[in-house]
Amino acid sequence: MLEPNSFAYGRWIAPGNAAKTLYNPVNGAAFARAGGSTLDFGAMITHATQVGGPALRAMTFHQRAKMLKALAIHLDSRKEELYAINPLTGATRKDGGIDIDGGIITMMVIASKGRREMPDGHVYIDGDVEQVSRKGSFLAQHIAVPLQGVAVHINAFNFPVWGMLEKLAPSLLAGVPAIVKPATQTCFLTEACVRLIIESGILPDGALQLIIGVTGDLLDRMGPQDVVAFTGSADTAFKLRSNPNIMRNSTRFTAEQDSLNASILGPDAVAGTPEFDLFIKQAAAEMTTKAGQKCTAIRRMIVPEQQLDAVTEALAERLKKTTIGDPAGDARMGALVSAGQKADVLEKAAMIGTEAQQVLGGDAFDTPDGPGFLAPMLFRCADPDGAKNIHAIEAFGPVSTLLPYRDTAHAAELANRGQGSLVASLVTHDPAVARDVAVASAAWHGRLYITDRDSMGEATGHGSPLPHLVHGGPGRAGGGEELGGVRGVLHYMQRTAIQGGPDVLTAITGQWVPGSAEVTGPVHPFQRTFREIKIGETITTDPREVTLEDIEHFAHFTGDTFYAHMDDTAAKANPFFPGRVAHGYLLLSFAAGLFVQPDPGPVLANTGLNELSFQKPVSPGDKVHVRLTAKRKTQRTDDYGEVAWNVTLYNQDSEQVAQYELLTMVSYAR
Amino acid sequence: MLEPNSFAYGRWIAPGNAAKTLYNPVNGAAFARAGGSTLDFGAMITHATQVGGPALRAMTFHQRAKMLKALAIHLDSRKEELYAINPLTGATRKDGGIDIDGGIITMMVIASKGRREMPDGHVYIDGDVEQVSRKGSFLAQHIAVPLQGVAVHINAFNFPVWGMLEKLAPSLLAGVPAIVKPATQTCFLTEACVRLIIESGILPDGALQLIIGVTGDLLDRMGPQDVVAFTGSADTAFKLRSNPNIMRNSTRFTAEQDSLNASILGPDAVAGTPEFDLFIKQAAAEMTTKAGQKCTAIRRMIVPEQQLDAVTEALAERLKKTTIGDPAGDARMGALVSAGQKADVLEKAAMIGTEAQQVLGGDAFDTPDGPGFLAPMLFRCADPDGAKNIHAIEAFGPVSTLLPYRDTAHAAELANRGQGSLVASLVTHDPAVARDVAVASAAWHGRLYITDRDSMGEATGHGSPLPHLVHGGPGRAGGGEELGGVRGVLHYMQRTAIQGGPDVLTAITGQWVPGSAEVTGPVHPFQRTFREIKIGETITTDPREVTLEDIEHFAHFTGDTFYAHMDDTAAKANPFFPGRVAHGYLLLSFAAGLFVQPDPGPVLANTGLNELSFQKPVSPGDKVHVRLTAKRKTQRTDDYGEVAWNVTLYNQDSEQVAQYELLTMVSYAR
Repeated sequence: MLEPNSFAYGRWIAPGNAAKTLYNPVNGAAFARAGGSTLDFGAMITHATQVGGPALRAMTFHQRAKMLKALAIHLDSRKEELYAINPLTGATRKDGGIDIDGGIITMMVIASKGRREMPDGHVYIDGDVEQVSRKGSFLAQHIAVPLQGVAVHINAFNFPVWGMLEKLAPSLLAGVPAIVKPATQTCFLTEACVRLIIESGILPDGALQLIIGVTGDLLDRMGPQDVVAFTGSADTAFKLRSNPNIMRNSTRFTAEQDSLNASILGPDAVAGTPEFDLFIKQAAAEMTTKAGQKCTAIRRMIVPEQQLDAVTEALAERLKKTTIGDPAGDARMGALVSAGQKADVLEKAAMIGTEAQQVLGGDAFDTPDGPGFLAPMLFRCADPDGAKNIHAIEAFGPVSTLLPYRDTAHAAELANRGQGSLVASLVTHDPAVARDVAVASAAWHGRLYITDRDSMGEATGHGSPLPHLVHGGPGRAGGGEELGGVRGVLHYMQRTAIQGGPDVLTAITGQWVPGSAEVTGPVHPFQRTFREIKIGETITTDPREVTLEDIEHFAHFTGDTFYAHMDDTAAKANPFFPGRVAHGYLLLSFAAGLFVQPDPGPVLANTGLNELSFQKPVSPGDKVHVRLTAKRKTQRTDDYGEVAWNVTLYNQDSEQVAQYELLTMVSYAR
Repeated sequence: MLEPNSFAYGRWIAPGNAAKTLYNPVNGAAFARAGGSTLDFGAMITHATQVGGPALRAMTFHQRAKMLKALAIHLDSRKEELYAINPLTGATRKDGGIDIDGGIITMMVIASKGRREMPDGHVYIDGDVEQVSRKGSFLAQHIAVPLQGVAVHINAFNFPVWGMLEKLAPSLLAGVPAIVKPATQTCFLTEACVRLIIESGILPDGALQLIIGVTGDLLDRMGPQDVVAFTGSADTAFKLRSNPNIMRNSTRFTAEQDSLNASILGPDAVAGTPEFDLFIKQAAAEMTTKAGQKCTAIRRMIVPEQQLDAVTEALAERLKKTTIGDPAGDARMGALVSAGQKADVLEKAAMIGTEAQQVLGGDAFDTPDGPGFLAPMLFRCADPDGAKNIHAIEAFGPVSTLLPYRDTAHAAELANRGQGSLVASLVTHDPAVARDVAVASAAWHGRLYITDRDSMGEATGHGSPLPHLVHGGPGRAGGGEELGGVRGVLHYMQRTAIQGGPDVLTAITGQWVPGSAEVTGPVHPFQRTFREIKIGETITTDPREVTLEDIEHFAHFTGDTFYAHMDDTAAKANPFFPGRVAHGYLLLSFAAGLFVQPDPGPVLANTGLNELSFQKPVSPGDKVHVRLTAKRKTQRTDDYGEVAWNVTLYNQDSEQVAQYELLTMVSYAR
């Protein structure tokens, strides 16, 4: 018997007398006892907020990202231990891949986003400095900082590993400790994963705790800095979000719940096209993967009315090839997670059956006897406009319904009848159809997945949330949002508008803001290593005159003989120029000539530049000088770091003529 | 008697028999009858979603922004009609300025943000293209589109104009029609403003409706595409957000409610410093402006324990100079909005009085007799750590409490004891203090306002939400967020991840994505006007060899003799270069030489560039050619538009060596 333990306040806690017995959905054998122990939820919160939170917040975003990467690598090295018990959930090895490898990859991508898109500091910068004063002595900048509470993650049974890791990675990257509560039926797999994590010693104490069993009074203890992220049924979500304590404290609550996901076959994708075949293949895969127990699975297939017969036939043909059997063996489709789940699916399917004709079911399949096995059930609805259940009731298993549509607008309308979903897909080779459906329908779906013959080779699948993209949907889908790269991390952080002078913004953000203190050192900053360079370190160059000869010479050398540089009369007729002016790239090049250090040193390369704006024309005879200030430092490897410089070009009247951010790669040390 | 009307389904609806009588807080005279009429809330929603929504969504963001600007200009021209009735709210002309001019300016700034930061199209682009496939045939892009429902704005009594316009501007810019429900006591001023708006004819039919009186079953009718934005008390917010229909449908609900805003005097800001004086001035202003009826007013003044006596004395001195009287006259402070409000403030002040000593009150002032007049009440608490009411009970009037702190960490801790606020301020001349307080405290406040002697001249005020910055706060403050430029607009839109091939993304976003179709025309795109240029229009230039002579020549001409260009051995020792390489700016300059059209034409100027990355070194003898594609068009004035071009430089092996976005200003027409 497996005995998955809770992990609370640094201790493993075994199941208690009131533990629930779990039965194998394949053969009905009891295989685990779970829950029933007494946990002190107040102490768990204290452990998270007093031990885990401070330890996580002491780390920078990059340190936390490296920690997640190390964790993902560790899990990857031990994942076979998870695959070994995966069949007890009813899932095949391929199904388990979405869960186990999918979860590990998700953590890896979030770690990588943290390194590439967040600073190596404690404060995330949200958007640009807001210029709210005329002279620039008082500015504003939005930042985001970690919430100081705990994240409670309440997960669904279908992805015991991915479901945990996809919430855990953003939470920890944000700097917020987590208490994870998996669904009891598959908690043993979550527990095995938590055990690998805890025993690795990679996470600081208090960063992760695990509840096997009920959450008791945990939610009654949530405060204004806590987050509850729930995945599961709409009914449970309703119960949780009604908690008066959560409402009184404005505790952040996000739900990812029921979703009647639709897939639309484009009007152009008639039988015989690659898109038609792609639609059939995708539809069959979404019905049978994880035996249809995926929150993103296709529940409604919306097809042109002229194609309804062809789709029905082709899909039924393909589905019939599905082998159903022991998930530990070669079968294409395993079992539902439990007998109870199967009963629930059959009950919901019967409600769908009141509005649609079943066109494929158990009699077409060789279905084993175990308590969780259920063959695919395909329905077809003649009156999708009149139907109600089909757009509202999610049979969380291998069940889907075909609906005919008249035109693209009707197809979008039917998709939107789900009242909010996680994902809708569209198979079309016509970008105009894609645009029309997106404009009519994007507001109702968290993700719109559009494929055709050209993209199918690399397309990632209707049912696969990606860590790069938001996962969640409006309305019935819960109104929540998870993942989406840094977007998902920000759900565990507070966005705050900081108002202050330039020095205050520089001190808080760690990024130099124009107007704040400039530091001048004894040597040129390009002679200093990444480690040595200080934010605000500045040089101001000597001036250089830009002569008419320079302009002529540059024009002929580069071939850029634009009239504004060559012909005074024509230049004067241009609304932006007082007469002949220097090329913008001449100014950039002269600026580099003014500040570059010729000899080998720590600054290795100019890798690019950002937000260059030419602010004032430079006329022949003007003298230009440059101010260069270290703006932002981001370590990239052990050996190098990126230093971004604020570069401003001035003319002889101290007017800004150009400004940009210069990117350089700099040696970490000598 | 004023008779403010509702405005529903295109009709003005007078007060009914059950109307409430409003009394002047200055003299007790009845001056208005409001509400009591029967409204058909279902018909209002239908009018908004079937008439107003489609009309707004047919416009682009820029068209809606122009509409808002026109509306703001119109209101500005008629604002004296609003100032004329403003004293009936108890507010002075200066108080009214925050409300009336403040509201108009807010709408103007939101309009300007819409023009500058959103596209002239129907789809907002959120973040970068996500490269989720190796070859780039399948990509992803987050977008945001308008919700297809209605925004219900339930506003507080204290800012009848600003409170409406600050919610209305983002809602309309997003493309979502609004139903506005002002607090009844000051609804006549909101109604006067709505009348100006409706009679201007600037808004499309159905974009704005007004409820005077109760909301009946309106919230029971909210769906998944609707938004409820509430400002008012925590108790009312709780009632509204408990609505089961709102929870079931995941209707977006945002609240801006109670807030025990703090102001911290920095440890450096001792008596005699400019910061000390600034703190006193700010504290007095925040207590007396709008007679303290501001959700952002300072309720808790957190000062170094050594400074407590000095602050108490200086603040009391300053407050005593406040003249209280008829808001239509010269008095510095007017009346509370009603006798009921005054009673509520006194009740709350008494609860504060159980934990703090009152150090200033009515006996120090010459207070008129009218039902709404109330002199400033200053309290001082000896034990801020033991106190409860002071951190939890908001007396919504001219009431504030002084609290002593030991060190910066203690000050932040006390500020955070408010359990979430809209704004906290800090007066310090030390950026390190600012950083410490921000890191400890930003997670608890929606806005952190930091000033000193250098920024005070341009600082915008502790109590002033700016349209550029988010307004809202965690926890007790409601967990909501409004304003913040485009951030505030996005609260009325759905963020959706679009996955598809490059052509699909280009079709949906209106912005050219690399890999999607390139259009070649008979003439160079620089010879075409803004109106003529099509997204995807491309030229590919001839190649140009980059010789060692070119590099030498460029180095000596510009002065950029960096060793990577000049010394083969030294260059080879650099980890990024195979030997001597061309200057990045030489490549940019040659690229311009390859694609620029010398003669006058529609393209008037190169105004800047974005996201330049040098991807691969170019060695002497390499041949470089350029592909230039129209990526994005944004009309800026009637005469010009900005065209952004995707520019890619390739070598003789078709490898990308550099990429950037080139910005040009182009004549709209010939």
